[in-house]
Amino acid sequence: MRTVFFISDRTGLTAEALGNSLLTQFTKIEFKRINLAFIDTPKKAKMAATQIKEASELDGQPALIFSTQISQEYHQLLIDSGGIVFDFFDTFISKLEDILGVESSHTVGLSHSMINENTYGDRIDSINFVLNNDDGLNTKNYDTADIILTGVSRSGKTPTCLFLALQYGIYAANYPLIEDDFKTIKLPPILQKYKGKLFGLTINPVRLQNIRDERRSNSGYASIDQCRKEVKLAEDIFVQNQVPFIDTSHTSIEEIAGRILNKSKIERRY
Amino acid sequence: MRTVFFISDRTGLTAEALGNSLLTQFTKIEFKRINLAFIDTPKKAKMAATQIKEASELDGQPALIFSTQISQEYHQLLIDSGGIVFDFFDTFISKLEDILGVESSHTVGLSHSMINENTYGDRIDSINFVLNNDDGLNTKNYDTADIILTGVSRSGKTPTCLFLALQYGIYAANYPLIEDDFKTIKLPPILQKYKGKLFGLTINPVRLQNIRDERRSNSGYASIDQCRKEVKLAEDIFVQNQVPFIDTSHTSIEEIAGRILNKSKIERRY
Repeated sequence: MRTVFFISDRTGLTAEALGNSLLTQFTKIEFKRINLAFIDTPKKAKMAATQIKEASELDGQPALIFSTQISQEYHQLLIDSGGIVFDFFDTFISKLEDILGVESSHTVGLSHSMINENTYGDRIDSINFVLNNDDGLNTKNYDTADIILTGVSRSGKTPTCLFLALQYGIYAANYPLIEDDFKTIKLPPILQKYKGKLFGLTINPVRLQNIRDERRSNSGYASIDQCRKEVKLAEDIFVQNQVPFIDTSHTSIEEIAGRILNKSKIERRY
Repeated sequence: MRTVFFISDRTGLTAEALGNSLLTQFTKIEFKRINLAFIDTPKKAKMAATQIKEASELDGQPALIFSTQISQEYHQLLIDSGGIVFDFFDTFISKLEDILGVESSHTVGLSHSMINENTYGDRIDSINFVLNNDDGLNTKNYDTADIILTGVSRSGKTPTCLFLALQYGIYAANYPLIEDDFKTIKLPPILQKYKGKLFGLTINPVRLQNIRDERRSNSGYASIDQCRKEVKLAEDIFVQNQVPFIDTSHTSIEEIAGRILNKSKIERRY
């Protein structure tokens, strides 16, 4: 067991993203992860250093520290703690200064806020768009949708739409394929006009059964026969109507959203 | 103008997060950002290298490349493109190998999927919880909520709840404070039982007016007097009842969520 600290003067999301990405390359070691966010006062930095020292002593080996800490003063405290520091920020900033020919501002708290300030409204608008156009509730806004996800119930449409909105500011509607839609191999009438905006989600029937069964245990809805039938019919519709589609079975929401963005070539607002 | 490429064999979200964080320290330079995600074949890597070369020629200076590319072969193509590579992955992996005493698996595609596979269900559950308990629609599930956000209409409750769910797997409900709740300085009756789970959001009245005005232009709802009154009364309720609260006016959704997590000490599921 090895303790890993993610340390940042802000949320620590960047330190976690890169740190976890690096750690997944070491599958044989078990890591205990601790996120220390908003370490932005000398007192908090000292407490973090103490915690690192204690964890290292308990483990019998120095803790790993993944840091996006900007303050040099706090940085020194981390080094003095005895943990091993991987500084995701400082490692690159001087090379960047050299290449760009200007000094960095070394200012805490710019990272997320700067980028997001202007686009805050866009993100909120796109989230509201998802909520108002979820699950086929509303089809009258499809003209303004950037993309319309479609697939069987519980194939991952809503989380994917929300991630597309939060991360990229995309207006994502979604339309569930239900019994009525499976009577023919044609697209449901409401979708025909928007063929260019459609993107299908499919899923392994066994995985679908598991997901449905957690919600409505032992129902016909969650039976393997029903899941197999629906997935087959949905895929037939996608293929027949040249709707691009991806399998969400073993894929994170981030990756499903990323792949849709990549394949569909829709513009990010953010 | 300087062109910056974010290059990854997966979504590129990690490269973007750290890269943008570094770039915000150089406020005087304008950057053109291009995300090349899923660069996972020799053909795509060659196309990326060509695009970098062309951008560098057009700019009259080498493009910056922020990369989390794992493949050594594609990595070399990026270097040969003439752009300046900041390798967020390779820079740290050999130091990690030394310290951990094992070789990394150098396997593409582990980064998000590994971590998320087990927790996919948790994230979906928490997103569904948010959707089912949004905007005071439903108060009967407050027993199972991890946290209940409250504040005036358009103070940022829903996006924050969704981010808490997506990023951390937290069950976040939200309850809007409306006219009826402002008749006394007490907590609304339904919330009294859940005082320990409450977290307030407040907002600058002028900012609130702008947000509301975009939706319902020139309405009483969006008037500055109404916004000032509601914000004041909501803050009075927070203070009187010792509900912790934060100001969302100039803060990204990531940071609002991070600060709530930090202050409330609720457990992340993810």
